[in-house]
Amino acid sequence: MGVPERLTALRAEMAAKGVDVYVVPTADFHQSEYVGDYFKARVYITGFSGSAGTAVITADEARLWTDGRYFIQAEQQLAGTTVQLMKMFEPGYPDMNEYIDSILKPGMTLAFDGRAVSVGEGEEYASIAAKNDAKVLYSEDLIDAIWADRPELSKKPAFALGLEYAGESAADKLKRTREAMVAAGANTYVLTTLDDICWTLNLRGDDIDYFPLLLSYAVIKMDSVEFYVDDSKLSEEIKADLVALNVNIHPYNDIYEDVKAFGEETVLLIDPDKLNYAIYNNFAADVKKVEMQNPTILMKAIKNPVEVENIRKAQIKDSVAHVRFMKWLKENVGKIRITEMSATDKLDEFRVEMGNFIRPSFEPISSFGPHGAIVHYTSSPETDVELEEGGLFLTDTGAGFWEGSTDVTRTYALGEIPQQMKDDFTLVAISNLSLGSAKFLEGCTGLVLDILSRKPFWDRNLNFNHGTGHGVGYLLNIHEGPAGFRWKYRKGETAVIREGMVITDEPGFYVEGSHGIRLENELLACKGELNEYGQFMYFDEITLIPMDLDAINPDIMTAEEKKLLNNYHKKVYATLTPYLNDEETEWLAKYTREI
Amino acid sequence: MGVPERLTALRAEMAAKGVDVYVVPTADFHQSEYVGDYFKARVYITGFSGSAGTAVITADEARLWTDGRYFIQAEQQLAGTTVQLMKMFEPGYPDMNEYIDSILKPGMTLAFDGRAVSVGEGEEYASIAAKNDAKVLYSEDLIDAIWADRPELSKKPAFALGLEYAGESAADKLKRTREAMVAAGANTYVLTTLDDICWTLNLRGDDIDYFPLLLSYAVIKMDSVEFYVDDSKLSEEIKADLVALNVNIHPYNDIYEDVKAFGEETVLLIDPDKLNYAIYNNFAADVKKVEMQNPTILMKAIKNPVEVENIRKAQIKDSVAHVRFMKWLKENVGKIRITEMSATDKLDEFRVEMGNFIRPSFEPISSFGPHGAIVHYTSSPETDVELEEGGLFLTDTGAGFWEGSTDVTRTYALGEIPQQMKDDFTLVAISNLSLGSAKFLEGCTGLVLDILSRKPFWDRNLNFNHGTGHGVGYLLNIHEGPAGFRWKYRKGETAVIREGMVITDEPGFYVEGSHGIRLENELLACKGELNEYGQFMYFDEITLIPMDLDAINPDIMTAEEKKLLNNYHKKVYATLTPYLNDEETEWLAKYTREI
Repeated sequence: MGVPERLTALRAEMAAKGVDVYVVPTADFHQSEYVGDYFKARVYITGFSGSAGTAVITADEARLWTDGRYFIQAEQQLAGTTVQLMKMFEPGYPDMNEYIDSILKPGMTLAFDGRAVSVGEGEEYASIAAKNDAKVLYSEDLIDAIWADRPELSKKPAFALGLEYAGESAADKLKRTREAMVAAGANTYVLTTLDDICWTLNLRGDDIDYFPLLLSYAVIKMDSVEFYVDDSKLSEEIKADLVALNVNIHPYNDIYEDVKAFGEETVLLIDPDKLNYAIYNNFAADVKKVEMQNPTILMKAIKNPVEVENIRKAQIKDSVAHVRFMKWLKENVGKIRITEMSATDKLDEFRVEMGNFIRPSFEPISSFGPHGAIVHYTSSPETDVELEEGGLFLTDTGAGFWEGSTDVTRTYALGEIPQQMKDDFTLVAISNLSLGSAKFLEGCTGLVLDILSRKPFWDRNLNFNHGTGHGVGYLLNIHEGPAGFRWKYRKGETAVIREGMVITDEPGFYVEGSHGIRLENELLACKGELNEYGQFMYFDEITLIPMDLDAINPDIMTAEEKKLLNNYHKKVYATLTPYLNDEETEWLAKYTREI
Repeated sequence: MGVPERLTALRAEMAAKGVDVYVVPTADFHQSEYVGDYFKARVYITGFSGSAGTAVITADEARLWTDGRYFIQAEQQLAGTTVQLMKMFEPGYPDMNEYIDSILKPGMTLAFDGRAVSVGEGEEYASIAAKNDAKVLYSEDLIDAIWADRPELSKKPAFALGLEYAGESAADKLKRTREAMVAAGANTYVLTTLDDICWTLNLRGDDIDYFPLLLSYAVIKMDSVEFYVDDSKLSEEIKADLVALNVNIHPYNDIYEDVKAFGEETVLLIDPDKLNYAIYNNFAADVKKVEMQNPTILMKAIKNPVEVENIRKAQIKDSVAHVRFMKWLKENVGKIRITEMSATDKLDEFRVEMGNFIRPSFEPISSFGPHGAIVHYTSSPETDVELEEGGLFLTDTGAGFWEGSTDVTRTYALGEIPQQMKDDFTLVAISNLSLGSAKFLEGCTGLVLDILSRKPFWDRNLNFNHGTGHGVGYLLNIHEGPAGFRWKYRKGETAVIREGMVITDEPGFYVEGSHGIRLENELLACKGELNEYGQFMYFDEITLIPMDLDAINPDIMTAEEKKLLNNYHKKVYATLTPYLNDEETEWLAKYTREI
């Protein structure tokens, strides 16, 4: 069945249910960044496979909204489907909500799968409907009715994260969580974000691309946990552990009915930013709610000493793999065929050799030359190119080791590169090291620190158009709140930086049609001196990979900036040489030499 | 009548009105930073004259809450008054609201003058009362009934600010204000902050210490302005101008009754942070309200081209006066008797000589040696000391010229000073120049930029415990929102920095018992290059006074920091020499020499 036939079938369903406007997002029921194939309803109904986009279907129209990253791809994929491309933020195209507002008439019904929509989005749809005296139906997944060969929900087994990796038992995590519930005056905590649930129960799964998460919901009560999950994924051992924690297992989708039963004795703790609209609307009107950020978000972001030790190990492994990859790349480019995709495979080979490798920790970005300037570039067989001397190769990839997830970017000069590329690379290195060497008082947010990375660019009327860093999860999401580095406020990403947080430091610079540069270290927030002025903090740069000296121009660096680079390289050399053979050590000495 | 007798009289009034707990703040009815003598009710009832403090009186107790700056002074002034000192933020002392909460019993009445209390404070009192089933009375000024010799409300004449200074007519300001009201969906704008009213109507007064403000309220409607002011202060010319603007004059206090008459056709625009509790509570319950930041706050903060040109002139005048003062001070210290207070007089003499001087723009801080470490030090005949060689003298003062208000701080080495003082001074100079030379993208707030001034300190585990800068009013308040520099968020002080804003840059460093250093320039926010990355911004340092080279240690400065100082000094020399005689020019050349 092609897209036009699918649309015809959907419209028949819509007519049968009295639906006039049907909204189809691509999202799972847990606000996840990546989603399993089961959840790709928008891809099914439009044919457009980009990661961001929402379709709106009526009896005689089908429109798809997506952003500038995907205009070309969407135009190609939508050709012949009857679905019209709506270019977000481009003049001449209505905003999606404006469009819905313009077509809804009194008595009509606006429908969507409320499980795949956030509370905020759902409330916006509801208010547009109310304004137009239209009805809202949020309990119907109409795509499911027509999608004959819909992929099954993942059935892959869950696995437990032992105390040697998690560093804190699920019992202790639940105890702390319940203390937070009591402090908030709540007795029932509805938790639907997969990383929070997996962190709390020390479980992992394989239900989502890249991130080892387990599709589930949890309702934490004062003396039990109601856990909604496909129990075929749980081993007997895991089940026994859960019983010991007084965790009751229910079918995955039962939560929607169960939450309707909360009565007046219930005081809910919920985070509307991390909950779907269907669950939120299924609560009875008289149930008391405490709305706040999920307390598990901050607990999870502050890595415990065992996690910190593991993360350091994971970073050293990843750094050793990178050094071997860098040496291999420098020695082989122009001699053997290396492409964007094969380079990533090679880097992952080196990672696998380090042991305890589970899987890549996110979708790799591997880009040569002009591809590097496309910040969200993903190499595919259609776009894959060979690496050649004279250009820059950018690799932004990560490993999920048992000792934690890594997220690391390096850009390497292949052969001799033009002066402008060296100058640009040097600015990115200065930027990275300036932020990495920050000292600050406890209480600072990433908003306060971000300019340390921007200054080398802003002083020259330049900039990079993305945030400078994000928190990193431990075998959970790779982008983990609540802290990060950015100069523009964004909710949930600019919390106070606490001891034990791990945040990336990844400035970049991009020249369209020519090259892209990004250098990403992970930083561990540490306590420094405590004195009359307060508690000072600093970052430990736990990623230890040379910043390619073949691309550094010392002439545009101040004495202090050279010192930062030399000190970093000294630390790289000292930390990694115990893991390297003589030849590698000699090679590393050259690439960490003082400038 | 001493304080005990005053308390007895107040308690008789309280009994007569059925009041059990009476709260007495020191505040006028307009959230002003300084208040006229009429408003010093708390000083009257306790004897404590510090600028911050609130008294709570019951039938058998009288307590005063104040902060650490005033503990010593309050202990002295409260001796023998029966008023107990409550040290804020000190262990063992209850928070004031906790105390009120602990003594209020069902049926009791908590009273305060709702005009002297902000909406937020008043609502907190009301909620404490509600929690204890107590009543609130906010319409009684019980002090007024017993204060026989209460100073009159100021009767000093108002004056108009001509277009050559204001740069925009009141008619145009009202037009822009009404456009903002329409945009907000409001038709009636209740404005009670004196600087906003004076800015809008291009009027000034003399009703408050230092700031040339006119006690008044304004209700801006779509075709008229209701202006509540003592009309004896207004000249016939001013009255005629107001008539032409359709401004109707009412007695100062009539606003409290008039706002009760707003009906259902009224949509109010109000800023609860800038309104007193009595006005807010006098609105009828069914009047629609749009609550937002006063739109005049941003309009006023963005100086127009005429204001900018005037402010530049005022800064040059102030800088010339400072240079003459600095020369005089360096040449005369140790030879003639100079004290903290006489030094300020001398500086103001030089300012008066520059012409168009109206008055000092705020209470001067003039501190020698250990006094410099007391950030809010005010020299008085009791504390005044002689300036001596071997120490640092800090002067933080300003002038109200017709061309605008200045706020400038310099610290001068008297004779040869110890190395540690030089090193500390050098860090403050680096800090000031680093922030002053910032380049940034439009959209930045002072939260983002503040670390440029902290970095020299934080890198050395040091800090200064105050914000780095605030907006400056044009013959209005000296601390003017909404922008400023600080690393901790504070409402109303960290808005986006816009072209035309004038913000101080005043880092400092303080060593208790030894010395204090602060260097304050005013910065004008300007637009720089507009390119593919956005609109770049920079600051023009409009305060042009040498940073005392006798206190600079070049050995702890980087090459880039020396360049910043040398470039600043070049600009100082080039800008000021046209106003100086040969001897002064020669002297300035020495104090702006390249290092």
